Amino acid sequence: MKPSVRIVEVSPRDGLQSEALLVATEVKLELIRRLIDTGLRDIEVTAFVNPERMPQLADAETLCYQLEPSEAVRFSALVPNLPGLQRAQQAGINNLAFFSAASESFCQKNIGCSIAQSLQRCEALVEQFKVHRGSWLRAYISCAFACPYEGKVDAEKVSELAAKLMDIGCDEIVLADTIGVATPAQSRQLVQTVKEQVPIGRLALHLHDTRGQALANVYSCLELGVSTIDASVAGLGGCPFAPGASGNLATEDLVYLLEGCGVDTGIDLDRLIGVGRFISAQLGHANQSRVGVAGGLPYES
Amino acid sequence: MKPSVRIVEVSPRDGLQSEALLVATEVKLELIRRLIDTGLRDIEVTAFVNPERMPQLADAETLCYQLEPSEAVRFSALVPNLPGLQRAQQAGINNLAFFSAASESFCQKNIGCSIAQSLQRCEALVEQFKVHRGSWLRAYISCAFACPYEGKVDAEKVSELAAKLMDIGCDEIVLADTIGVATPAQSRQLVQTVKEQVPIGRLALHLHDTRGQALANVYSCLELGVSTIDASVAGLGGCPFAPGASGNLATEDLVYLLEGCGVDTGIDLDRLIGVGRFISAQLGHANQSRVGVAGGLPYES
Repeated sequence: MKPSVRIVEVSPRDGLQSEALLVATEVKLELIRRLIDTGLRDIEVTAFVNPERMPQLADAETLCYQLEPSEAVRFSALVPNLPGLQRAQQAGINNLAFFSAASESFCQKNIGCSIAQSLQRCEALVEQFKVHRGSWLRAYISCAFACPYEGKVDAEKVSELAAKLMDIGCDEIVLADTIGVATPAQSRQLVQTVKEQVPIGRLALHLHDTRGQALANVYSCLELGVSTIDASVAGLGGCPFAPGASGNLATEDLVYLLEGCGVDTGIDLDRLIGVGRFISAQLGHANQSRVGVAGGLPYES
Repeated sequence: MKPSVRIVEVSPRDGLQSEALLVATEVKLELIRRLIDTGLRDIEVTAFVNPERMPQLADAETLCYQLEPSEAVRFSALVPNLPGLQRAQQAGINNLAFFSAASESFCQKNIGCSIAQSLQRCEALVEQFKVHRGSWLRAYISCAFACPYEGKVDAEKVSELAAKLMDIGCDEIVLADTIGVATPAQSRQLVQTVKEQVPIGRLALHLHDTRGQALANVYSCLELGVSTIDASVAGLGGCPFAPGASGNLATEDLVYLLEGCGVDTGIDLDRLIGVGRFISAQLGHANQSRVGVAGGLPYES
């Protein structure tokens, strides 16, 4: 395992976008401030998407204008296309995330184009990104493990797509288990296949914990040298009406595992637990992090 | 990893003993019948303890008398001492579990004697066990990872205790993370230390999922050859007033991981999910298994 791991906190975007109620911009800003106070240095703060399709993130500009710029913190935003990129860059966000998908059906239904077309969009985006001196571009591969319509996805197919996204100029590939079905065997197999095309340091995991496997999957891939993991405080990201059903891997549980295994995260776990409790209380639903509920070590280590 | 894993289902005992309300014997019997129907072959059905201290299991005899004997299924019961053993054997249970603890404070507070005295109790118990032709005796080591009063427990100390319990005549050592604090690094270290004294095939893990680490811990130890894991359907075993806070590793999540990794469990996951939903509904609280809530694979594998 690598001696340190970079955690990309996705709660302000991937977490809050699934909330049933709109969250006030002030609450989002407070969440982000508190996340930074824990030591988190990579935060996906919002998405520049159609505000009518995703009213939860309609305040993207307002939010970004109020972020306190920091050399130490990488704020990023999801952008699906060129207009999104332009909005993000006008709002001062130079770290972006684009998303494609490993399955044709999912790509059509959720991104509204074929995989090939999504690669063309990515090319156009990378061109503008460079013109405007963007600094870091992640490419999510949705359904990298399985697709709700097509079932298990072939690792070779993901690997080819990852290679194309890197060729286009993306800085990092994020393998996303969108429907939370992977087990350690599949996670390892996928990482082993993709790392033949993408340097392991440019590979991240984004795992939904729908079936309780996320942390075991992460552990199995840490053993292969993966060192970037997405997570969401309090496991935010699931449907608030089905607690525990489909949230992201909880940042608290991940930090607990990593620090317990001697892997440095730079994060203060007690503060992080506090942030998870704060945002759960604000949203009025159950904290989906087990460490968040139970607390850290019940004794001095 | 071993090609198959034996799961010891502990929900009827370790799960139900923490319920706030008494569960009717008929419901327990129905739970056990349904567990058997999933393919589970090792079930800890009750404990022969002081009924005043643990009214939830006061029906131990009544329950055991009504079990349908089966060659295929190993019913076991927890016994703390000689009177417990006598009650169990009179009720026709020949597979027993004894418990000691790796920390002196926990042993005193929860078992009411020193570790040395608990070994003497175990010796007396093994003697009677053999006289009455008992067939399988597990020895739980509570707080094998850490103690709420003393903090982290030294692996060497656990290893010595395990060796003594095997010398006395126990068939199997169960390393219990009673307070659910272990991470994969500690789990591996403990198993590696103890397996110098106890054959790996005689070593089981019993992990509470208080901090969401249980499945990652199991995975890390499967890699070392561990092949017996305790689990509890629907994650039963936590305090019903703090959902998710301290339950056992959920059998559904474990089976999902194992079968997904090509490890045979002999268990029908869909049926098992049904059992978890049945007992959660009976108890009137949230299902703590993520697979139990979300279901298995959402497509044909």
